[in-house]
Amino acid sequence: MKKKLKKVNAAILIIGNEILSGRTQDKNIAFISNWLNQKCGITVKEVRIIPDVTNTIIENIRLLSKKFNYVFTTGGIGPTHDDITAQSISKAFKLKYEYHKEAYDILEKYYGKDKFNDGRKKMAKMPRGSKLIYNPSSAAPGFVTKNIFSLPGVPSILNSMIENCKRYLKKGSKVYSKTINLQTVESNISKKLSLIQNKFKKNVDIGSYPFFRLGKVGVSLVTRSNSKKYLQIVDKELRNLIKNKNIKILNINLKNN
Amino acid sequence: MKKKLKKVNAAILIIGNEILSGRTQDKNIAFISNWLNQKCGITVKEVRIIPDVTNTIIENIRLLSKKFNYVFTTGGIGPTHDDITAQSISKAFKLKYEYHKEAYDILEKYYGKDKFNDGRKKMAKMPRGSKLIYNPSSAAPGFVTKNIFSLPGVPSILNSMIENCKRYLKKGSKVYSKTINLQTVESNISKKLSLIQNKFKKNVDIGSYPFFRLGKVGVSLVTRSNSKKYLQIVDKELRNLIKNKNIKILNINLKNN
Repeated sequence: MKKKLKKVNAAILIIGNEILSGRTQDKNIAFISNWLNQKCGITVKEVRIIPDVTNTIIENIRLLSKKFNYVFTTGGIGPTHDDITAQSISKAFKLKYEYHKEAYDILEKYYGKDKFNDGRKKMAKMPRGSKLIYNPSSAAPGFVTKNIFSLPGVPSILNSMIENCKRYLKKGSKVYSKTINLQTVESNISKKLSLIQNKFKKNVDIGSYPFFRLGKVGVSLVTRSNSKKYLQIVDKELRNLIKNKNIKILNINLKNN
Repeated sequence: MKKKLKKVNAAILIIGNEILSGRTQDKNIAFISNWLNQKCGITVKEVRIIPDVTNTIIENIRLLSKKFNYVFTTGGIGPTHDDITAQSISKAFKLKYEYHKEAYDILEKYYGKDKFNDGRKKMAKMPRGSKLIYNPSSAAPGFVTKNIFSLPGVPSILNSMIENCKRYLKKGSKVYSKTINLQTVESNISKKLSLIQNKFKKNVDIGSYPFFRLGKVGVSLVTRSNSKKYLQIVDKELRNLIKNKNIKILNINLKNN
């Protein structure tokens, strides 16, 4: 019996002027996407980076929430005036923006009653009905509102929290992938490659990426599929192409991204 | 006489499955945004990362082209089957997808008539009426179609081409910025900071970003404005806040991002 393919997708919404301005190099997109791919079989279909502007956040939350199974936001959940993710999600879904009892207790315990000031209390406010994403690094939890997962922007904290998203996610079918790094240039293989991609377009995605490393010019061929069988068939065709063109294989990676 | 402020904005559209899947860490967003900011006074207002899918590219090109003064695309202008940026932009604007005479000549000269194969010729095809962005690294030019600037995905090549975009860009008013790195936590300053931001919200943007470096916890306060005068006024207010709270200043940066 053929196993039914479960396709689950997601979008990532990076909220933050500092990423848009180029001041800060984003590291969360690749991390979240890899994690979703490898651990949950979920494919990221779109990423947006937007400024700390309430109406822009509301508009994007509504649109992406409808368009994709899940949306992961990063940034804007700290104690300062430019942290407006929770308020904006509340407005997007017309939910009350209020203290989450458990989040309040966690933060009060972490800081101690004396030092639990207004800024810190703000981190316990979220859209009504949100579920918590626990934070083993710095206590302040992320939260899940409908299909939106809100995480902080600091990569080390985000990384420590991501596993705690799993319990709320429906997994998709595993994506298998293989990367063959070749010592050649793209134009040497582009014609034949296009024929192979066309032949298997229903089952396998073939990506071709030139690279320039340590003074060497090369091409990474990345094949991705939900089917191990088709990945092997395409691999054979690629091996023939490589052999016929007398191209040197530099190395091969098996990864799920 | 008061100088009139020229606000010029842009979007960045990253086209490529390899960035979406997390396989490749993007480096172009921060580079382009910094360059536009510092060299052209142009502010990036939105970034999107989308897959190599024709209709998705068309839809995004049309929308972003209308919404922003300029759009910078990266990726998808090489010789292989998954390089579909030029075709998609042609379709988006209903322009003929054809050989650009000068691009053809540049590439033929670079590769030599014998080695100028179909894959390489493909890199000379672009939407009718496009203007070239010269490529000092690897010959294959980028192109400007209406307000869309199409650049390659490989960072080292993109970086070498960016200055050649300048001749087609209308500059905006310079943005000044200042970063003060403090040895404190956000919640210690959030309340007063919010009052200062509110007071000067028309003229200065204040961003607050926690950091964790070399075992130290700190906060970067970033002020941005088109007016040097207002930047100085806000700076004074921030210095008072820092002094009153007895906070240690780690260092100060003057940058335009």
